[in-house]
Amino acid sequence: MMGKVICAGLGPGDPELMSVRAHRLISTARQVAWFAKAGREGMARRIVRGLIAPGAAEYAMEFPVTTELPFDGPDYDRLLSDFYAHWADRLADLAAAGDVVVLCEGDPFLYGSFMHLHARLQGRVEVEVVPGIPGMAGCWTATGLPITWGDDVLAVLPGTLPEAELARRAADADALVVMKTGRNLPRIRRALAAAGRLDAAWLVERGTMEGQRVARLADLADGECPYFAIVLVHGQGRRPGGRA
Amino acid sequence: MMGKVICAGLGPGDPELMSVRAHRLISTARQVAWFAKAGREGMARRIVRGLIAPGAAEYAMEFPVTTELPFDGPDYDRLLSDFYAHWADRLADLAAAGDVVVLCEGDPFLYGSFMHLHARLQGRVEVEVVPGIPGMAGCWTATGLPITWGDDVLAVLPGTLPEAELARRAADADALVVMKTGRNLPRIRRALAAAGRLDAAWLVERGTMEGQRVARLADLADGECPYFAIVLVHGQGRRPGGRA
Repeated sequence: MMGKVICAGLGPGDPELMSVRAHRLISTARQVAWFAKAGREGMARRIVRGLIAPGAAEYAMEFPVTTELPFDGPDYDRLLSDFYAHWADRLADLAAAGDVVVLCEGDPFLYGSFMHLHARLQGRVEVEVVPGIPGMAGCWTATGLPITWGDDVLAVLPGTLPEAELARRAADADALVVMKTGRNLPRIRRALAAAGRLDAAWLVERGTMEGQRVARLADLADGECPYFAIVLVHGQGRRPGGRA
Repeated sequence: MMGKVICAGLGPGDPELMSVRAHRLISTARQVAWFAKAGREGMARRIVRGLIAPGAAEYAMEFPVTTELPFDGPDYDRLLSDFYAHWADRLADLAAAGDVVVLCEGDPFLYGSFMHLHARLQGRVEVEVVPGIPGMAGCWTATGLPITWGDDVLAVLPGTLPEAELARRAADADALVVMKTGRNLPRIRRALAAAGRLDAAWLVERGTMEGQRVARLADLADGECPYFAIVLVHGQGRRPGGRA
């Protein structure tokens, strides 16, 4: 009896914010796999500390490269492609013995790494995806302000976009989420300033996690920005009774 | 000892997709409130069937109007504004006796109705918001395909926007989510066709709930479209090894 590959979205970081379903699947899993930077525990595995059953088999899927090579170069592409092909094979093999639960921060289908395995597992093994609270939702909740009202348009932008493109899109939407900040933060800041949105922008680091920091982007220096940081601009749309 | 008003995001509809924290708060609550159309059970209350403890006090916050009046007219605005003011007062009073848990479908800060109470409760009572899996994440998971890859830009658009505006924005983003479909579906369809995106569009009704339907929008007639329906166009961005 063939098992499934089940990707469990873990939510934004606080273990209590994973779904009841993800919690049940992970705590009863006999085989668990997750992505991590080589030699690190990794965010996904950290979120489920104490939750995986004793005796469960654990598989760290260590990226061969993260930010050491340009993501649009041929070496990066080949290394990652081989990595995903290898782990798709491994997971398909493991599923022959029973279900394998793959951990994924946030929501798996929103810029998640699992989708690269998902595409390679089609037709080979049954795959199930359990959605999770996206990291961005944890971050806007941390600011204590709604992200969208009424007819607000929300744009979710990768911070990897060219500066002019970021600026154009930042000026054209009501609410903004900029993902993949990290080393892109200086460019994101310039783009928001050009779009007239910098004064309304927030940076949320480690949203919902230990060490969470919520600050106005204009009040922060560039400098070290962790990968798990998101830039937000809240919408200010229509609401009954008008704006407060 | 004053209690808090705690808004618990319920996620997209499947009760197992609420967070562990929301589940715990709701099942131990002594006072629970939720929004509903007058005379109806309402989606939020339906999601938590069997979860609220016997003996808990329940408060249905019934909208004085939903789609009977134009949402941009003065009557709609006044009725809703009075409604939110009334319930902000009630919740602040109830919190004097202990915590009140307010149920909210999806994620409370993403186009949620609770934000109108949240704004009116500031400075009067402690308010806590528990994020939830947005309805749109439940819907794109239901299609079995990732919504964004690599550097894809995601636009979240209210279906209430003018047709030309919808078309312009649909042509300008990689991945699309159109909320608030319902009676706006014919206009959304025309806008997607004008943007060249209709053939790639999906309609997900009652995502993750009983009666879920996932279909290509081009294969459906207009006609009755439930409020809990979302239109999606998946991004097709960069991925290691190229597109499948």
